[in-house]
Amino acid sequence: SRELFVLTYGALVAQLCKEYEKDEDVNACLDRMGYSIGTRLIDDFLARSAVKKCRSYSETADMIAQVAFKMYLGITPSVSCSSATGNEFSLILDKNPLVDFVEELPAERASLSYCNLLCGVIRGALEMVHLAAEVTFLQDRLKGDAVTEIGITFLRKPEDRKHRRN
Amino acid sequence: SRELFVLTYGALVAQLCKEYEKDEDVNACLDRMGYSIGTRLIDDFLARSAVKKCRSYSETADMIAQVAFKMYLGITPSVSCSSATGNEFSLILDKNPLVDFVEELPAERASLSYCNLLCGVIRGALEMVHLAAEVTFLQDRLKGDAVTEIGITFLRKPEDRKHRRN
Repeated sequence: SRELFVLTYGALVAQLCKEYEKDEDVNACLDRMGYSIGTRLIDDFLARSAVKKCRSYSETADMIAQVAFKMYLGITPSVSCSSATGNEFSLILDKNPLVDFVEELPAERASLSYCNLLCGVIRGALEMVHLAAEVTFLQDRLKGDAVTEIGITFLRKPEDRKHRRN
Repeated sequence: SRELFVLTYGALVAQLCKEYEKDEDVNACLDRMGYSIGTRLIDDFLARSAVKKCRSYSETADMIAQVAFKMYLGITPSVSCSSATGNEFSLILDKNPLVDFVEELPAERASLSYCNLLCGVIRGALEMVHLAAEVTFLQDRLKGDAVTEIGITFLRKPEDRKHRRN
């Protein structure tokens, strides 16, 4: 049963909103927490899913959507590759159980990325299998978008990452 | 899968420990959060469990242990009645999934009631079905006790409660 988790997650976000005035700080904190969770969750995932090594970014993205999301959130996002270079993917969530109890974001929290923990979890877990990635929400139904979309950009080499940041 | 929940709960407790110096304040905050969660979780519980109205405190305690704990945490604590007056019960948890990733409490957090959210959840949910109760951890394996024990004292009338507090 997910409800206790979903409500506890809501309490965590509410607590961070009390603590940080700026949405950006809440988002960053959720991402950091998620990262730390991801670095620990990966062991559980590898042990329980018994998946083999992925041979491509595409396989990895499918694994996240079809095995990991299914295992931990009970949903299966659809995956699309969104770049010709083959390292950018989108997970499209038709349904997002994490927001089951959230009607809408309050007006003063319009930039809050409520589920940002998930981005951190994915990023942290990927890093533990030596895949550097940037993970962010590209669309969010909580913000009025038609779907919720998580973007994953695999970073090929350290130079790529540096390049992206500059 | 509970792991994501358990790790997220750990992040929440860690965040509160950053925010509050005193363990008592962290415990109180977890209890308050739990209460708020319990008042919302009860609808989900009643809808999904389809349980009938309990006719005694004893039946209520059994329901919490056998149906609610099973549903939300995947465990079934044993229940014992610990008073001749029939309104005090203990839930004994041999295994506590919420602490799966916790080795031990740090020395400076010796009074932390790590799982205190659960007490609040039970208290909040009971209040929504018009049962006032005090819910506290009586023993905690994280603190070196042999078992983890949650005490539930049903408060018969407002006077009882007042009396207890004075």
